Amino acid sequence: MSTDPYRPRPEHRFSFGLWTVGWRGNDPFGEPTRPAMEPEHALGRLAELGAWGVSLHDDDLIPFGAQDASRGRLLDRFRKALADTGLAVPMLTTNLFTHPVFKDGAFTANDRDVRRFALRKTLRNLDLAAELGAGVYVLWGGREGAETPVAKDARVALDRYAEAVDLLCGYVREQGYDIRFALEPKPNEPRGDILLPTIGHALAFIERLAHPELVGVNPEVGHEQMAGLSVTHGVAQALWAGKLFHIDLNGQTGPRYDQDLRFGNGDVKAAFHLVDLLERAGYDGPRHFDFKPARTEDEHGVWAAAAACMRNYLIFAERAAAFHADPEVAAAKEASRISALAVPTLLPGEDLAGLRAESFDPESAATRGMGYERLDQLALDHLFGVR
Amino acid sequence: MSTDPYRPRPEHRFSFGLWTVGWRGNDPFGEPTRPAMEPEHALGRLAELGAWGVSLHDDDLIPFGAQDASRGRLLDRFRKALADTGLAVPMLTTNLFTHPVFKDGAFTANDRDVRRFALRKTLRNLDLAAELGAGVYVLWGGREGAETPVAKDARVALDRYAEAVDLLCGYVREQGYDIRFALEPKPNEPRGDILLPTIGHALAFIERLAHPELVGVNPEVGHEQMAGLSVTHGVAQALWAGKLFHIDLNGQTGPRYDQDLRFGNGDVKAAFHLVDLLERAGYDGPRHFDFKPARTEDEHGVWAAAAACMRNYLIFAERAAAFHADPEVAAAKEASRISALAVPTLLPGEDLAGLRAESFDPESAATRGMGYERLDQLALDHLFGVR
Amino acid sequence: MSTDPYRPRPEHRFSFGLWTVGWRGNDPFGEPTRPAMEPEHALGRLAELGAWGVSLHDDDLIPFGAQDASRGRLLDRFRKALADTGLAVPMLTTNLFTHPVFKDGAFTANDRDVRRFALRKTLRNLDLAAELGAGVYVLWGGREGAETPVAKDARVALDRYAEAVDLLCGYVREQGYDIRFALEPKPNEPRGDILLPTIGHALAFIERLAHPELVGVNPEVGHEQMAGLSVTHGVAQALWAGKLFHIDLNGQTGPRYDQDLRFGNGDVKAAFHLVDLLERAGYDGPRHFDFKPARTEDEHGVWAAAAACMRNYLIFAERAAAFHADPEVAAAKEASRISALAVPTLLPGEDLAGLRAESFDPESAATRGMGYERLDQLALDHLFGVR
Amino acid sequence: MSTDPYRPRPEHRFSFGLWTVGWRGNDPFGEPTRPAMEPEHALGRLAELGAWGVSLHDDDLIPFGAQDASRGRLLDRFRKALADTGLAVPMLTTNLFTHPVFKDGAFTANDRDVRRFALRKTLRNLDLAAELGAGVYVLWGGREGAETPVAKDARVALDRYAEAVDLLCGYVREQGYDIRFALEPKPNEPRGDILLPTIGHALAFIERLAHPELVGVNPEVGHEQMAGLSVTHGVAQALWAGKLFHIDLNGQTGPRYDQDLRFGNGDVKAAFHLVDLLERAGYDGPRHFDFKPARTEDEHGVWAAAAACMRNYLIFAERAAAFHADPEVAAAKEASRISALAVPTLLPGEDLAGLRAESFDPESAATRGMGYERLDQLALDHLFGVR
Repeated sequence: MSTDPYRPRPEHRFSFGLWTVGWRGNDPFGEPTRPAMEPEHALGRLAELGAWGVSLHDDDLIPFGAQDASRGRLLDRFRKALADTGLAVPMLTTNLFTHPVFKDGAFTANDRDVRRFALRKTLRNLDLAAELGAGVYVLWGGREGAETPVAKDARVALDRYAEAVDLLCGYVREQGYDIRFALEPKPNEPRGDILLPTIGHALAFIERLAHPELVGVNPEVGHEQMAGLSVTHGVAQALWAGKLFHIDLNGQTGPRYDQDLRFGNGDVKAAFHLVDLLERAGYDGPRHFDFKPARTEDEHGVWAAAAACMRNYLIFAERAAAFHADPEVAAAKEASRISALAVPTLLPGEDLAGLRAESFDPESAATRGMGYERLDQLALDHLFGVR
Repeated sequence: MSTDPYRPRPEHRFSFGLWTVGWRGNDPFGEPTRPAMEPEHALGRLAELGAWGVSLHDDDLIPFGAQDASRGRLLDRFRKALADTGLAVPMLTTNLFTHPVFKDGAFTANDRDVRRFALRKTLRNLDLAAELGAGVYVLWGGREGAETPVAKDARVALDRYAEAVDLLCGYVREQGYDIRFALEPKPNEPRGDILLPTIGHALAFIERLAHPELVGVNPEVGHEQMAGLSVTHGVAQALWAGKLFHIDLNGQTGPRYDQDLRFGNGDVKAAFHLVDLLERAGYDGPRHFDFKPARTEDEHGVWAAAAACMRNYLIFAERAAAFHADPEVAAAKEASRISALAVPTLLPGEDLAGLRAESFDPESAATRGMGYERLDQLALDHLFGVR
Repeated sequence: MSTDPYRPRPEHRFSFGLWTVGWRGNDPFGEPTRPAMEPEHALGRLAELGAWGVSLHDDDLIPFGAQDASRGRLLDRFRKALADTGLAVPMLTTNLFTHPVFKDGAFTANDRDVRRFALRKTLRNLDLAAELGAGVYVLWGGREGAETPVAKDARVALDRYAEAVDLLCGYVREQGYDIRFALEPKPNEPRGDILLPTIGHALAFIERLAHPELVGVNPEVGHEQMAGLSVTHGVAQALWAGKLFHIDLNGQTGPRYDQDLRFGNGDVKAAFHLVDLLERAGYDGPRHFDFKPARTEDEHGVWAAAAACMRNYLIFAERAAAFHADPEVAAAKEASRISALAVPTLLPGEDLAGLRAESFDPESAATRGMGYERLDQLALDHLFGVR
Repeated sequence: MSTDPYRPRPEHRFSFGLWTVGWRGNDPFGEPTRPAMEPEHALGRLAELGAWGVSLHDDDLIPFGAQDASRGRLLDRFRKALADTGLAVPMLTTNLFTHPVFKDGAFTANDRDVRRFALRKTLRNLDLAAELGAGVYVLWGGREGAETPVAKDARVALDRYAEAVDLLCGYVREQGYDIRFALEPKPNEPRGDILLPTIGHALAFIERLAHPELVGVNPEVGHEQMAGLSVTHGVAQALWAGKLFHIDLNGQTGPRYDQDLRFGNGDVKAAFHLVDLLERAGYDGPRHFDFKPARTEDEHGVWAAAAACMRNYLIFAERAAAFHADPEVAAAKEASRISALAVPTLLPGEDLAGLRAESFDPESAATRGMGYERLDQLALDHLFGVR
């Protein structure tokens, strides 16, 4: 209904991976539970639900190893579906993990010919990304890692990883493509230990690249939570570094296998605080859902889950706005001295000598309460809609 | 006995925190089980066991709030004990977590006077570090964090954190101290979520500082393992970035409370691979043990645990050297194409156009086995001494 | 205000540990941040907030080792406060973990005199429990465990554990006390590995006791979540076994240190589903909050947190009831064949021979969707109050 | 070589799942990396390596839905291979997880016809188990669970689960089969939360069955470690309850996806202590390896990994025996009062009244050290072979 306050609209910039709604439900212990979905069908339904964009791996659209003629036909159909639905393609990425040739990695495989093949596959898809107008190219190195440290010296692997990203950046600059790269961190699965396991590791890696300005991160909610980390803190550090180029929204229940739950499921409170952060930060990139509809579901369940991802985002955004607009919250923030953190510890004109000469009574200061329990409960009250 | 191949000697650069052997066994549910230990006694025993250095928080030696006269006496006694034992003081650090005044953080406390007090406490101890010849000053921000995102915008907190480290770096440069800082990451405990939770986040943070060249990291084995991360990969990335300024060796059994087991306990294989990495990398900083002897122990157990930390390091180092010297291992590495990873993917003179024109048969390449199971078992065989 | 739909009343049977609101904020890295709280004061405030009961360890009220006269005076004051406030004492428990004598365990300490002392301490407090009318006596064996398997053969330790519980059951029967025991599982902290680490292990242990009918479990939300387990499933299995004698409600964010967050914080969705289960199951024991108000707080924060525990329970209960009363939810449940699970797989009159002769088309059956994504989102919609 | 002290022989009772060495390397993100392996080939190689037995799911040998004629041929070939190799078939189990019809569970699926089909599939395979002489029938309910508590009331699901196991036990008794059942616990993956998530939950469930004497557990090392639990403690409790009917040996690195590493990899120390326990307990069931050779490997790697599983077991067994035979260890155990734990806390003839009258000085007793650090290091010394 048009008056639904949680109805997604294109201006919300919600996007979905073609592989998400198209996921067939295979897992390590089970075969697919759903038939393959035609990309055109997926685009049509996503547009109806209110999505703005669709993202894809090369192999989502064009089977690995397809001939050029077949590739051309598939692309033509896809371009037509884009035109028909008005969906944008904000992001492309390369599948460097499904085919067994990547079992030891892509950009960091020990075998040099595999590394070269991985580059080749990526370069070709970069051309497509440019053509489709994708502003972000995600690099998820799911196979870049090891099950044993004796298989791979991580220092040497990082050399190769950096070399690959440098080559890709050089290509994009040379071609004049308006594309930036976003590294997607993940701690493990499918490799025992994946290189660049968290937002932090990826941010640090970027600083050693030849073109750091072209490279940012694509945090995924569940990936940080698989390491027990606060996704809000991680995304905040990415924002602080000016490096939040894209984001993958989904759900997870702590350290375990990668669940890719629909956004809003899993750690509800973390999802709420993350939306609050993105909205306050003015993040204007795609709000991209990288989730897997449960394999118990048929296609009805797929679309129910996709719609719910967007609905939950909008609920959280509305509740977060109400929280900040609540005068009692404003008073509680003041009681918690939230704004005092923004005041420099040493103001212009002050120096360390002056600071060292100050007197201070730690015993007395220690008795001041911070008021955080109350503030946190006010946030829950707004999340639950009981204020 | 002098012929013991695992006997620690000063050239091994083993150091211990005064707070480790001096830990009294208090935990969240229990009172101390051991009496306080005189620093002089600790130094004497550590030297006898073969340690090279001792590190300390300001409050380990001089009680919080001590008067100047008392402070002077305690320092005199400590300097004398250093002279008597020949122990070095490679590292100092500030206790910014025990006193309740730091309950909301130190450099990132909402209260500005607390932040200023934290700086003051650190500056004073920096002077002592310079006097004692400590080349590394560790910053562990155990209270810099939050239990709820509404308490602290991590972006603003990182501003304050960076401001504090910049001020400290400026002071060190101004004073001409030969001191570098090492940030110690930890994901949680005592705060729900601590800022700079992993090696990666700390490395990334450093790049946004005013004097990045003065700041590196002090990874702690157990802290990375609390996030389920590979400490070997993390330390490798720190080495790759030229930022391994110090290291805290101990043990942990995965994501749970901070166990601070003696080094070698916990994840044995990870400890072995870490020592292998440090030795191959030529790491020449302190091999520092930051552990807690189990609170079931009396003082005999404390020294048994301290001696075992060093013994295990030396066992691992010997076994790692034997592994690499084994001709069968060399052959297995070759079979795994380990050395091929060091060859650039694009050699000088090659270009992407040439790479793109190459042909490659992924199906055939995918059948090549990597030989990692065998290589990993050879490592275990050496660890167990069965080859 | 009396019209507040989430105002706690005695009939809700909310109880608090004296040690919860009285927690002073000491943690492994920090000293207390709050002064000690008089029990009488705690009772007064709890009653004002709408609590029904208070629970306690012996040492919460009477310092370890107190003389009889002092004990008598403290008990008199406590009895008077109970009378003044009308609070019940539904549960008592023994502190067998704080004093260093319990560093190796209480009922499973290697030292037999420690085991006997632990029994003595418990027996004395059982007499008090009977006098105060506590129907449940919790046994939390926080020190019953080990950091290394060589310290303790768990089979032998379980023999001693069972012996102790059998002795206590025998005593209660002999005295004619109307008391049942509730074992509280926890996976780790303060010991590296605690015996009876989960609800399941405790339930299994009970079946080998001399008086299983007298012993049930006291699950704690956060303790199950420290093992990454579903607390709803665990509590459901306890209910299924007729063994849910008590429950500790609080919050936790996955595997890490024991956070003891206020109820409703941490995994919000799990808390919601747990309340739904307790209400549907007709659980009529104490709804007991075993949490720690954040150490950032002064006393105002303590009471804000305590009030929020009860408020969140009532919000969840109301929302769960609305969920089940929603006709659209009823239809969604039907679409998910929820009620079909209650139909026996083999009905009376059927036999396996008949079952074996049936034909069935798995391919066709596999295409049926379960509708769980929709059902789960309906639950979230009710939790957020957007329906 | 025959003088290899770690050469496996049939009397070691090492067995392998057909699905382990036959695993093709598919994972959630990747396609198979190895071709299918003929069962006959697997048996031949396992026998050469020194294995004693082979275990299987029905579908490992006979494709799901195969016609009777095809089934007969496959079974004939398998029987011949067993005769040729002399391998035993100690265990059979049912695949109730791969086919999409089981997406919502097998014995606890909401759809009754699926439950009946699951029973039918199991009954048929039980007949085969009896014919092949398998004494243990494993029940791994990998799909018995839920991603959301609203999908499944765990109490009702446990009713159905118990009904199914009761029916199977009844069938085995009626047919006079010499078969016992072993429940295999797992906390999660492939379901969000699996019923009977740990050894404890399975042991507790068994006590509510109609024929508890016919049902025990099949713990898997990695499954307990996925919950951060001590597998040694868990197996000890199963032994204590007389319920260790089978065991799955493999490796895992803490809470994360199910890694199924070869035995000895992952948590080395836990594996060592587990072997010590099994050997001391006189466990005489199959030592069954349920692992996945890394998907980086070709067939050479598969056999290297399989051989290493057995080799590591024998190394651990030898080192554990040496540990217990070491006089210094005996003295250390005595110093740790290990044997005192076996003495009842209340000896025959003693009573609680006497115990209550005893005096005891907790302060003095608290000073006694337990000597665990030394004992644990002696265990490591033996594991490393440095004594």
